[in-house]
Amino acid sequence: MTRVFNFSAGPAVLPESVLQQAADEMLDWHGSGQSVTEMSHRGKEFTEIAARAEADLRTLLAVPEGYHVLFLQGGASLQFEMIPLNLLRGQPSVDYVHTGEWAKKAIAAARKLGRAEVNVAASAEDRSFTYVPDRADWQLSEDAAYVHYTANETIGGVEFSSVPDVGEVPLVSDMSSTLLSRPLDVSRFGLIYAGAQKNIGPAGLTIVIVRDDLVGLADPPLTPMLDYATHVKAGSMYNTPPTYAIYLAGLVFAQLLADGGLAAAEQRNIAKAELLYDAIDDEPFYANPVAPADRSRMNVPFTLADPGLDADFLATAAERGLTQLKGHRSVGGMRASIYNAMPIDGVRALVDHLRDFAAERG
Amino acid sequence: MTRVFNFSAGPAVLPESVLQQAADEMLDWHGSGQSVTEMSHRGKEFTEIAARAEADLRTLLAVPEGYHVLFLQGGASLQFEMIPLNLLRGQPSVDYVHTGEWAKKAIAAARKLGRAEVNVAASAEDRSFTYVPDRADWQLSEDAAYVHYTANETIGGVEFSSVPDVGEVPLVSDMSSTLLSRPLDVSRFGLIYAGAQKNIGPAGLTIVIVRDDLVGLADPPLTPMLDYATHVKAGSMYNTPPTYAIYLAGLVFAQLLADGGLAAAEQRNIAKAELLYDAIDDEPFYANPVAPADRSRMNVPFTLADPGLDADFLATAAERGLTQLKGHRSVGGMRASIYNAMPIDGVRALVDHLRDFAAERG
Repeated sequence: MTRVFNFSAGPAVLPESVLQQAADEMLDWHGSGQSVTEMSHRGKEFTEIAARAEADLRTLLAVPEGYHVLFLQGGASLQFEMIPLNLLRGQPSVDYVHTGEWAKKAIAAARKLGRAEVNVAASAEDRSFTYVPDRADWQLSEDAAYVHYTANETIGGVEFSSVPDVGEVPLVSDMSSTLLSRPLDVSRFGLIYAGAQKNIGPAGLTIVIVRDDLVGLADPPLTPMLDYATHVKAGSMYNTPPTYAIYLAGLVFAQLLADGGLAAAEQRNIAKAELLYDAIDDEPFYANPVAPADRSRMNVPFTLADPGLDADFLATAAERGLTQLKGHRSVGGMRASIYNAMPIDGVRALVDHLRDFAAERG
Repeated sequence: MTRVFNFSAGPAVLPESVLQQAADEMLDWHGSGQSVTEMSHRGKEFTEIAARAEADLRTLLAVPEGYHVLFLQGGASLQFEMIPLNLLRGQPSVDYVHTGEWAKKAIAAARKLGRAEVNVAASAEDRSFTYVPDRADWQLSEDAAYVHYTANETIGGVEFSSVPDVGEVPLVSDMSSTLLSRPLDVSRFGLIYAGAQKNIGPAGLTIVIVRDDLVGLADPPLTPMLDYATHVKAGSMYNTPPTYAIYLAGLVFAQLLADGGLAAAEQRNIAKAELLYDAIDDEPFYANPVAPADRSRMNVPFTLADPGLDADFLATAAERGLTQLKGHRSVGGMRASIYNAMPIDGVRALVDHLRDFAAERG
């Protein structure tokens, strides 16, 4: 068996130790004679697995009192719809910051719902979404129900380097591609959500962290599955949760704790990102268009000086075991996603390829 | 490693061959150097896995032309809400047949939505949900948007033995706990849905099979994630699907095909159910309350003549490797779920336990 270095934007690389443990336990979890995927979600074994996963996630993020941690389904896309459904409480407007493809989808869903004015408080469209609009330039509404921003844009490779201050208005953030990559002050937020398939675990699990006072206010009332109050009350077990995905995410959380928590993860991620951006900046054959202060530590898009060589770059990368480097079709070029589970050796191998390819073909 | 016989109602036992293959492929799928859970859902490898899973499911069920097969998230519970949202097209009413706990939840969700009169066309409540109301006694509405029934009640252990005739009105069925346990004439239905965690695969995947002409009619228009039209148009990849769950379900489908398809599965399930019901009926110490013609082949609830011996029955069963036999709290007693993946040896071992326990303690 030879493992590749997989730079997929998501679903994405998972820690090899986690996959090995999952393989070892697939037919018999801890001597129970069954796979985790066969366990009743209400049985003793699985409720312990889920409780441990939630406890470890709370430890990693130092989630303060007064926040619920939910394990849901449907991805960030369903949250785009559930957030306005749940958080609108008669206010006339909601504020969104537009930083790229994912912000655009969140804005479109809120508009489609049509229950409040969707105000784009700031947009980076003027420079092709290559930066984070300065907080001083945001035009927030007077009476917004919440302010929403996309903490990391996987396609554009733009990431907020700090949490914006919006005063008392609940701050809501799509953290799908950055949650667990660095320490976070959860107390600054009304609601955080993340599809799992980047830093957390397999696709099919969605994490929602929501402040107590924002739950149960939906007006008009919602059907049960769309109401956070349902899932809070049932401890994420109103209906059968994605049990195996929760188990794998729990293994990832335990590994992160064993490796020093999020402060240590951030140091590893800074080191990987610097290595890669330095290589791109050092070599005129490559370019990354994002304002340096707003560059994503997770997703690194870059272009070759000659796009005619893109296919050759990808083919020679694949020969070295470096896969999933093709950029998103909307921006072209290349993209290297270097989530928590990408080892620095993978980034080193990519940097070697960047240099060798530029030397031979640049 | 000793595998138990796991009678959980769901998530439930999976074929050991499937789990073994999943374990073998966990770190390296077919020499790709990655786990299926790490694959981009839009990459060549995973799109092949998903296409194969859909094709095999279509083959198993002989899905006719004009039906979409969707791989979604959220379980049957989200379908309870999506069905009225999508299928109401200005009609004043919808018809539901009430056969137990799951029908009750479907009815409650439709009522909560409040967009049409929810008519309970027939109910088995008069005899504690121990039978399927005779089709001749159903009081269908004049102008129902659809007729909904629960093909198998996992808690009551009541199953429709045939597909009811409702004329031209779209027939909708929750088949969570019976789909793939027997051949099915899909052409009789407007929409079929099933959570995967019984006969199909892991929790977190929901199968929806819907007729062309019922898609895209929602009025008022829906947000994208709640609209079947979105998922039809995107081939179930509007957003990241539960990739690993689809892969495991695909392995189950392939195994079912290799074992002779649904006709053969039905024969195995009939043999298992007869063995167990015969043992219950033969021994006065045990009782099953369901009308014989309506007894579920999948979920077999039974009581002991002395409920004071329930704990002892469960403990001695566990000693023989027979687990998850405790009945649902709402009905008490025992419940043996004997889905496709429960081998007949598991049922034989349970029957031995029934006889031995009655002989010793009855």
